[in-house]
Amino acid sequence: MDRLDQLRARMKEENVDLVALAPGAHMAWLLDVHPHGDERPLLLCVTVSDAGFLMPALEADSARQYTDLPFYEWDDADGPTAAFERLLTDFGAGSARSIALDESMRADHAGLVQDRLMNARRQFSETTVGALRMRKDADEYAALKRNATSADTAMQAAWAAMQPGMSEREIAQIARDSFASQGARPLFTIIGAAGNGAFPHHQTGETVLKHGDAVVMDIGAGMEGYSSDITRMAVMGAAPEGFAEVHAIVNAAVEAAMIAASPGAKAHMVDDAARGVIADAGYGEFFVHRTGHGLGTEVHEPPYISASSQTVLDEGMVFSIEPGIYLPGRFGIRLEEIVILRKDGPEILSDLPRDVRVID
Amino acid sequence: MDRLDQLRARMKEENVDLVALAPGAHMAWLLDVHPHGDERPLLLCVTVSDAGFLMPALEADSARQYTDLPFYEWDDADGPTAAFERLLTDFGAGSARSIALDESMRADHAGLVQDRLMNARRQFSETTVGALRMRKDADEYAALKRNATSADTAMQAAWAAMQPGMSEREIAQIARDSFASQGARPLFTIIGAAGNGAFPHHQTGETVLKHGDAVVMDIGAGMEGYSSDITRMAVMGAAPEGFAEVHAIVNAAVEAAMIAASPGAKAHMVDDAARGVIADAGYGEFFVHRTGHGLGTEVHEPPYISASSQTVLDEGMVFSIEPGIYLPGRFGIRLEEIVILRKDGPEILSDLPRDVRVID
Repeated sequence: MDRLDQLRARMKEENVDLVALAPGAHMAWLLDVHPHGDERPLLLCVTVSDAGFLMPALEADSARQYTDLPFYEWDDADGPTAAFERLLTDFGAGSARSIALDESMRADHAGLVQDRLMNARRQFSETTVGALRMRKDADEYAALKRNATSADTAMQAAWAAMQPGMSEREIAQIARDSFASQGARPLFTIIGAAGNGAFPHHQTGETVLKHGDAVVMDIGAGMEGYSSDITRMAVMGAAPEGFAEVHAIVNAAVEAAMIAASPGAKAHMVDDAARGVIADAGYGEFFVHRTGHGLGTEVHEPPYISASSQTVLDEGMVFSIEPGIYLPGRFGIRLEEIVILRKDGPEILSDLPRDVRVID
Repeated sequence: MDRLDQLRARMKEENVDLVALAPGAHMAWLLDVHPHGDERPLLLCVTVSDAGFLMPALEADSARQYTDLPFYEWDDADGPTAAFERLLTDFGAGSARSIALDESMRADHAGLVQDRLMNARRQFSETTVGALRMRKDADEYAALKRNATSADTAMQAAWAAMQPGMSEREIAQIARDSFASQGARPLFTIIGAAGNGAFPHHQTGETVLKHGDAVVMDIGAGMEGYSSDITRMAVMGAAPEGFAEVHAIVNAAVEAAMIAASPGAKAHMVDDAARGVIADAGYGEFFVHRTGHGLGTEVHEPPYISASSQTVLDEGMVFSIEPGIYLPGRFGIRLEEIVILRKDGPEILSDLPRDVRVID
């Protein structure tokens, strides 16, 4: 069953009359179409019987190379309203009672759809396209495994080069260059030395690494339409006081989450397991984010592994397990694995151990 | 008057009770704050009396380095709803009658605001932040001029290197490298050879340039928080049949638009002028896009120079004038200038003539 058919089956189950997707990950997953997205509304609209694009005229010829679906073209002079109306009429969707919008769509484009279908129940695509994307097939697994291997290589390249006196930015560049040399497009390289590591999304900068620093290294890239994401810890010669204890707690949290992650478990149970280990050790207030997120065509996608998530985990789902403890002014420790859920539990995609890397 | 005060003055004029902005160009312009944006709602909310952020807990420490405004923090376990409610209560905005949303905000984040303020009139930020951003001050002009000069240099670098046998992608890389060597971050490099040039947003690829090809070259980059955008034409040794005539028409359209662009004119009058020249020459159906767009912190921003735009042009506005004629299967011709509107008309930022560059 192709992905469009899979989506329609979900739409019937969820009583969704119309799905509207913007250029981006959902559209790419569904049709392998990657049109240019900008302030002009370009929407893929799907009903159980029809599918087509609301299409800016100047994108039409270029997009036509990648899809045979009908285009409802509009030009800059007239705007998109009339073309959208024609689409709805042709699709019999002018009185849709339930619509699912791409949650990443621009607010003004969502407004175009919602203003026309004022009485429709609006949801986002987590129960339709999002639900389907969570389970990866064998080809997707293979692509994610190759991505994970490239991230292992980039991490090792950074370890091999880093030394006291280098800046966070220089370390990040080494990882980026490694990704690029492997044909992967770097997406993020968080290098957080000492106190900077206590900001989970630290903006890598000019801070210079010095002896005794702990360094959070969280890197990822994109290749073959999929992505990588890994976090490991390094210390510059010697670890700061208290580091070994906290590292062991975070690693135990990873292991507890791994045990909790099995088909049929709810996502919050994985978060609970990791959080419980950290809270029991007295560091609960310093674990300030969810335990993980899905990974696929996007670096963050469902399933989210958070305290409130009722998502039921299933075989083939790919997500991160990445608890952390962040001690302001001292250091942060995060350890991140990407796993695919198998019948008997998670398989880790990386081949790198989670041991602290000591930079001599 | 600082930009926040300017915004509040606009809000009073426009009767807007609450402005909500996402990480991106509007927020950067208003406060010079550039937080990490992802699927977690992070919103700057402004009323005439208050301003603060709905802030994911794990971004808070990092964002705190750049702003003193209050944070309404939420964590992954609880979600953003309660924190947003606290913000609305503190700001006295729980019954806002009129809200302006960042049009580039994710649909699900806009949904968070709209679902709470169901009875508020919703608009996007074109009459508030968008209106303010259209007029550039002297510092912004200086940054845009430096960007324009960098694009001139990158265009000349591409011209100097290009020859038959090279691919579009290789030419694009030369322009990108030139931008990078000048400290600018390449944003787009459309190189469209022969028939590819007839797609206005052609995806630069492996097509090899050959003798007699016309080549559309549309490049831009970002530097100092501002951007560049220029389009010029090259021909490989000799021009294809009909090229000279069409090039002269497009150039005449640019000149007609320049004459129409004056303070007090409506934006559509500039589009009308360019479109009129092309239509009178019999090519109206081949000019498939608007005449221009604003340029600043974003490559596309208000004012839009389209057939339907009622925006009144004013001194200090910066926008493109870029008519084109696209002949399927043959070639496309687009010529693009970025101008700043002065009292007596437009000043062109580029120093490159619009003449066809003949590659010997």
